Amino acid sequence: MEVTLNIKKILEDINKTKPLVHHITNYVTVNDCANVTLAIGGSPVMADAIDEASQMASIASSLVLNIGTLNADKINSMIKAGKKANSLDIPVVFDPVGCGATAFRNEMSELLIKNVNMSVIRGNLSEILALSGKSVVTKGVDSSDISIKNLNEYLKNIAEKFKTVIAVTGKVDRITDGEKIVEIYNGCKEMSNITGSGCMCSSLIGTFVGANKDNIFEATVAAILTMGIAGENAWDKYKYEGLGHFHMGIIDEISKITPETIELNGNWNEK
Amino acid sequence: MEVTLNIKKILEDINKTKPLVHHITNYVTVNDCANVTLAIGGSPVMADAIDEASQMASIASSLVLNIGTLNADKINSMIKAGKKANSLDIPVVFDPVGCGATAFRNEMSELLIKNVNMSVIRGNLSEILALSGKSVVTKGVDSSDISIKNLNEYLKNIAEKFKTVIAVTGKVDRITDGEKIVEIYNGCKEMSNITGSGCMCSSLIGTFVGANKDNIFEATVAAILTMGIAGENAWDKYKYEGLGHFHMGIIDEISKITPETIELNGNWNEK
Amino acid sequence: MEVTLNIKKILEDINKTKPLVHHITNYVTVNDCANVTLAIGGSPVMADAIDEASQMASIASSLVLNIGTLNADKINSMIKAGKKANSLDIPVVFDPVGCGATAFRNEMSELLIKNVNMSVIRGNLSEILALSGKSVVTKGVDSSDISIKNLNEYLKNIAEKFKTVIAVTGKVDRITDGEKIVEIYNGCKEMSNITGSGCMCSSLIGTFVGANKDNIFEATVAAILTMGIAGENAWDKYKYEGLGHFHMGIIDEISKITPETIELNGNWNEK
Repeated sequence: MEVTLNIKKILEDINKTKPLVHHITNYVTVNDCANVTLAIGGSPVMADAIDEASQMASIASSLVLNIGTLNADKINSMIKAGKKANSLDIPVVFDPVGCGATAFRNEMSELLIKNVNMSVIRGNLSEILALSGKSVVTKGVDSSDISIKNLNEYLKNIAEKFKTVIAVTGKVDRITDGEKIVEIYNGCKEMSNITGSGCMCSSLIGTFVGANKDNIFEATVAAILTMGIAGENAWDKYKYEGLGHFHMGIIDEISKITPETIELNGNWNEK
Repeated sequence: MEVTLNIKKILEDINKTKPLVHHITNYVTVNDCANVTLAIGGSPVMADAIDEASQMASIASSLVLNIGTLNADKINSMIKAGKKANSLDIPVVFDPVGCGATAFRNEMSELLIKNVNMSVIRGNLSEILALSGKSVVTKGVDSSDISIKNLNEYLKNIAEKFKTVIAVTGKVDRITDGEKIVEIYNGCKEMSNITGSGCMCSSLIGTFVGANKDNIFEATVAAILTMGIAGENAWDKYKYEGLGHFHMGIIDEISKITPETIELNGNWNEK
Repeated sequence: MEVTLNIKKILEDINKTKPLVHHITNYVTVNDCANVTLAIGGSPVMADAIDEASQMASIASSLVLNIGTLNADKINSMIKAGKKANSLDIPVVFDPVGCGATAFRNEMSELLIKNVNMSVIRGNLSEILALSGKSVVTKGVDSSDISIKNLNEYLKNIAEKFKTVIAVTGKVDRITDGEKIVEIYNGCKEMSNITGSGCMCSSLIGTFVGANKDNIFEATVAAILTMGIAGENAWDKYKYEGLGHFHMGIIDEISKITPETIELNGNWNEK
């Protein structure tokens, strides 16, 4: 089961199909999510009204569900859109923002997973662990330092249990479909000093898998490589300016990324 | 019916009156909408609660209704605010974001137009065509390439039918009040690679017409010229940085625009 | 009652505790609010659902309530979160955005103050005056020029009446706990040409008091100094670029601020 990444083909498919990425997401980072979707060559649409959730999902290439600012209305829209996407074989990406912080987020995440088959679930480690039912102490939407024995095996098991690709982003990113597992060492710690680097990563995954439906695992790895490399390059360029320019710089770098950049700078390993 | 644009006077009236532009808008691009309103000299207020929609509209210089992330609650606020604005002769700008993509957006747009007299309706071509009842295939909130025979005549008819100024923005912008029609050739295609260039344009129109109530058509043309020229200049300046800086650059350029810049760079024709 | 500011200690306490700042806020400036919280060393969480408002508040270091885009649902969440914060001695910062503009905002502000003990209330002068029951003519969310005889005494009385720190930001910032009063002369008028400088300031206050609970007054002064100095420095650096870059520059400067910068550039006086 060796992993091979045809980055060139994956990016070409985005440019060729310009996937429509339907987001039901939070209002904190939504502008960045739309902008990275455009920057990499997709077309974002943000629509959460229950009256159109299903129809919008049906014309989309992928659906991104992000619970950053969840409420009862949005959950219903997410389930409706998710079921429609499932019925049409449209990939669904789930970002369980802040899972573990409140009972409401835990219960709603569980409800979503019960009702919608997710193609990819991306979160930080504490979110993914909380989602898996492991009790962890989280602090809001930020990841805490958690050490788990045999983490890779544990993540493979979650992926298998939920029949999905699991992507944990952090100092090391880990992506697994339950069989294969890839570790990525790109990115920089400053990315967690701006809001939205996780959400943006999920939107990139939505765009990549929307254009590469038969290749969900590899597309997810490519999306996370893109985010990490863009973050590194932006920090290199704007560290003396500060976090405002760094934030804009990440979107800059995503808009300029090429297969060659990713192949040259991608630092990953199959485990 | 020759069109003459007194750009200097139009901008002076904005600076003199600092129009309060009441927005009921989407949560994706709302920050940019507020910032361009300020950048050109207006004062934005975003308020969509049904409990204050009418009173906020009553103290405003203009009202901008944008259905980017519409839901049933917002529609009621829009109708209430719109009717109040109509009763006080306050101009209303309508941006039918994504009209044509879902039945909900089509029906709600129709409902809005039935209940509120719009001073200006701005959208991309597919949105305006969908609004006019023409069946078009749209893809989310992005404009598709559509060719219409005798487009200018068609748009004039819509403007006449809806008793409004119709502004279609795209490669060529077209603004008509049903009699006069102006084409604008400013702007650049990269503006559609960031989210919000359409919404920002509608907010500029809101600001321009809020300060130029007796001159709605000319104010709309001037606002779209401003947006196009700001976009061109920002792309010139930031194309090597990337889309993040380009995004900020558009707001930069709007904040620095002068009557002279518009007169010198404005590329438009009456048809 | 001489005011002494131990800026070094105040900033150190933020870095040591990384306070979790729970926001129930508006969707216009929410991204900036999250980013400045991170930039100064805090951890933001935005959560307004009634189902989790109380639990999220209970794990936070401070709570920021901002009524920029208020509605009936959010008010209930604010009261619930505020009461929980009060019961746990977690500081609450209130930003009465646009108070005075509509009856709804006035009534809801009154309701909030009746139900929640605020540690700090920050607004522009017209908002604070409206909150105090003084009838003023406001224009949307912008401050009008108002002259009040014995303003400092008047503000002290409001602080005493509401048992809170009152912070009025404007050309001169005034912070009082009912006994002491400090005037700050930092900042620049261009800060009101971008949206969110008030909201960002309230989020900074939330972060500062979250890490300095026993020192609310001094922490508030330090937060407002930080905002003012960051604004000045950003304008110095980006005035020729324009308002888009200035906006990002403010976040840059907050992320780079040091105790030395504040001590060197802080321009304030006890009155």
